[in-house]
Amino acid sequence: MSGTVKVDISMSLDGYVAGPDDGPEQPLGRGGEGLHEWVVATEGWRERHGYEGGTRGVDSQMLEEAFAGVGAIVMGRRMFDLGEPYWGEDPPFRMPVFVVTHEPREAIVRGKTTFAFVTGGPEGAVELARKAAGDGDVSIGGGADVIRQLLGAGLVDQVRLHVVPVLLGGGASLFEGLDPEQVRFEQERGIGSDGVTHLLLRVVR
Amino acid sequence: MSGTVKVDISMSLDGYVAGPDDGPEQPLGRGGEGLHEWVVATEGWRERHGYEGGTRGVDSQMLEEAFAGVGAIVMGRRMFDLGEPYWGEDPPFRMPVFVVTHEPREAIVRGKTTFAFVTGGPEGAVELARKAAGDGDVSIGGGADVIRQLLGAGLVDQVRLHVVPVLLGGGASLFEGLDPEQVRFEQERGIGSDGVTHLLLRVVR
Repeated sequence: MSGTVKVDISMSLDGYVAGPDDGPEQPLGRGGEGLHEWVVATEGWRERHGYEGGTRGVDSQMLEEAFAGVGAIVMGRRMFDLGEPYWGEDPPFRMPVFVVTHEPREAIVRGKTTFAFVTGGPEGAVELARKAAGDGDVSIGGGADVIRQLLGAGLVDQVRLHVVPVLLGGGASLFEGLDPEQVRFEQERGIGSDGVTHLLLRVVR
Repeated sequence: MSGTVKVDISMSLDGYVAGPDDGPEQPLGRGGEGLHEWVVATEGWRERHGYEGGTRGVDSQMLEEAFAGVGAIVMGRRMFDLGEPYWGEDPPFRMPVFVVTHEPREAIVRGKTTFAFVTGGPEGAVELARKAAGDGDVSIGGGADVIRQLLGAGLVDQVRLHVVPVLLGGGASLFEGLDPEQVRFEQERGIGSDGVTHLLLRVVR
């Protein structure tokens, strides 16, 4: 259990990780899809989804780094619900995924990915994910409420923040309500392409 | 009048350009000073203020670019009031500065800098600044309300956004209330040091 816990998420210039007025028609809210265009375009993402081609360079490198060394993933129930229809029979994670939920549910195995449902809150999910990851890292994919809660609880070591040059005007705010005295960062790197800028931040204890 | 109008401002991770609870004791709000540490540390800034030494590299380059080609500056009244005690008899601008205010006031000349007070709102100040700049660019230094109003009016060509890895938790939001459909960006560059990441954004018409 010596790995790190890292958040990996795309955010708009105005601080949202999903847009306003989300619903079945637009699960990521108005404009929210635009946050993920950079990742969907990369060679690494396309390969994990069984397609050829795609962009190389810094964005693809960031995606590879996101998965490198990761032994387990934590995500919110909403993110699971949104993604499931798209992931198909061989989801791109290929490792244990712990889904934070209020309703107990049987685990699901799909290809090389296991989805286990955890009712002990984000902290409980991270604890299980750390065990499952062994020496590997744990990656937190969202949503905003899971990340905010873990940052507030001091359970995150690193934030990989992908700042996309769009405004969303509302939606799920990543940092709102956190105590600036308690949640502090040191920047390790800031590097961009023409569609996104990647900030690698270490959480200061 | 062929120059561009560019915004140049530092912003926290959670989207604020000044912190909460501002007042005489903390004119930039709680934590707001931290937004400008990167610029104060650069060689270029120190030279303009009559000091030696300072950091070189990407941050200093960004400061040099901020002034390069600029023929006039627009700022809000609050920013003028905050800065005036520090700028002394030879303010670092060394060009015409147009201050947006509600109260008419005589112009001030200090060293190579002229401060003219404009009651025609941010748009009126930009119009005068464009004339004064001739073929040069106009730089908008803040505050948030001046920038928001000019972005909303479609009067900004470029935003040079310096994202500082701190949370402020409240204060003056740079983008709040803007219409995401109306204010759109294309990223020209994203580049960082260990204290700040610089996003160069072109406003899409």
